[in-house]
Amino acid sequence: MKFYQKEITLKSYPRGFHVITEQITAAVASDLSFITIGMLHVFIKHTSASLTINENADPTVRVDFERHFNTMIPENAPYYQHNYEGSDDMPAHIKASLLGNSVQIPITNGKLNLGIWQGVYLGEHRNKASGRKLVLTIFGES
Amino acid sequence: MKFYQKEITLKSYPRGFHVITEQITAAVASDLSFITIGMLHVFIKHTSASLTINENADPTVRVDFERHFNTMIPENAPYYQHNYEGSDDMPAHIKASLLGNSVQIPITNGKLNLGIWQGVYLGEHRNKASGRKLVLTIFGES
Amino acid sequence: MKFYQKEITLKSYPRGFHVITEQITAAVASDLSFITIGMLHVFIKHTSASLTINENADPTVRVDFERHFNTMIPENAPYYQHNYEGSDDMPAHIKASLLGNSVQIPITNGKLNLGIWQGVYLGEHRNKASGRKLVLTIFGES
Repeated sequence: MKFYQKEITLKSYPRGFHVITEQITAAVASDLSFITIGMLHVFIKHTSASLTINENADPTVRVDFERHFNTMIPENAPYYQHNYEGSDDMPAHIKASLLGNSVQIPITNGKLNLGIWQGVYLGEHRNKASGRKLVLTIFGES
Repeated sequence: MKFYQKEITLKSYPRGFHVITEQITAAVASDLSFITIGMLHVFIKHTSASLTINENADPTVRVDFERHFNTMIPENAPYYQHNYEGSDDMPAHIKASLLGNSVQIPITNGKLNLGIWQGVYLGEHRNKASGRKLVLTIFGES
Repeated sequence: MKFYQKEITLKSYPRGFHVITEQITAAVASDLSFITIGMLHVFIKHTSASLTINENADPTVRVDFERHFNTMIPENAPYYQHNYEGSDDMPAHIKASLLGNSVQIPITNGKLNLGIWQGVYLGEHRNKASGRKLVLTIFGES
């Protein structure tokens, strides 16, 4: 049984959804290769950005995500009280909780056992944000 | 500390929500029985179907889920670009990320420690789909 | 490698969102302190209440959550069939699955590795509910 943990800071991304699978696997490549059965847990240390798994190929999926989430969680809803950081503030918090702040992916024979179309998305829900911090934890048997 | 992992393919389900707790526990029954404290992680290797935990008894809950998600994430929204596989394509991706692609359930004394009303739901969001692949991982102490 | 598990019952909370980070860390404080790298998994054994991670400081965020979720998942939608426990019944089930029934937080050097603004929210989605049961599981290396 092994446990590895690493904290990384992503580059700053514009508002929207972004595939970050490669940034994650690059950061844990050597530790991952030793695990025969295990888990990768990815945790984002923020409340206005999110992590989810979705379609990794067609960029229009990410554009449609952004449009749909902006419709379902609009800016300037008349009932928002928490808006002193701008109209994107409260919607960002709600999107973060709807999509989630972590993903956990099985590891099989040294590799992430993702479906062929699956990638890890960063949801950046603020108009402007610094690079987001992730905690990557791997555990399993070698 | 033990780690067990198994991949299964569910039968093909119609669009909607389905309780699959028994299919999962049947697949891991013998491994589960050896764990005194641990976790079962269930991961779906697809981006147009989801896993969640909800009410396991009254089938109208699943019908109401399907109706509500179809209202909240409609087909043919004017802003969708990704629709070349049909009008159910993009909504399926959004539903998958809203509900999530994995569930993790504590194991206590050889059994899933679910609440009495909790069951695992498969959300099948495509009109037609083959049997979905799940990765079942159990870890814990025996 | 250690595994600890504990079941706790929260006090009864009114409908809405509540920060419960301290109740959780108090319940596992001694076990947590022994883990250098690991995970805390918090699981709620109910289908009409939820767990999520969001902003721990400004109480208006929790008020805005309640208002937005009540708008996005209204009571008395004409298509609900499952409403024999009242108009808050079916919306509570949907909110529970949208927000999720568990959170998993990395442990680093004996402490939860949360972002500075992150706290664990209980989403209480029923008008009246007894204290909710949580299963707290800690695993990691010491």
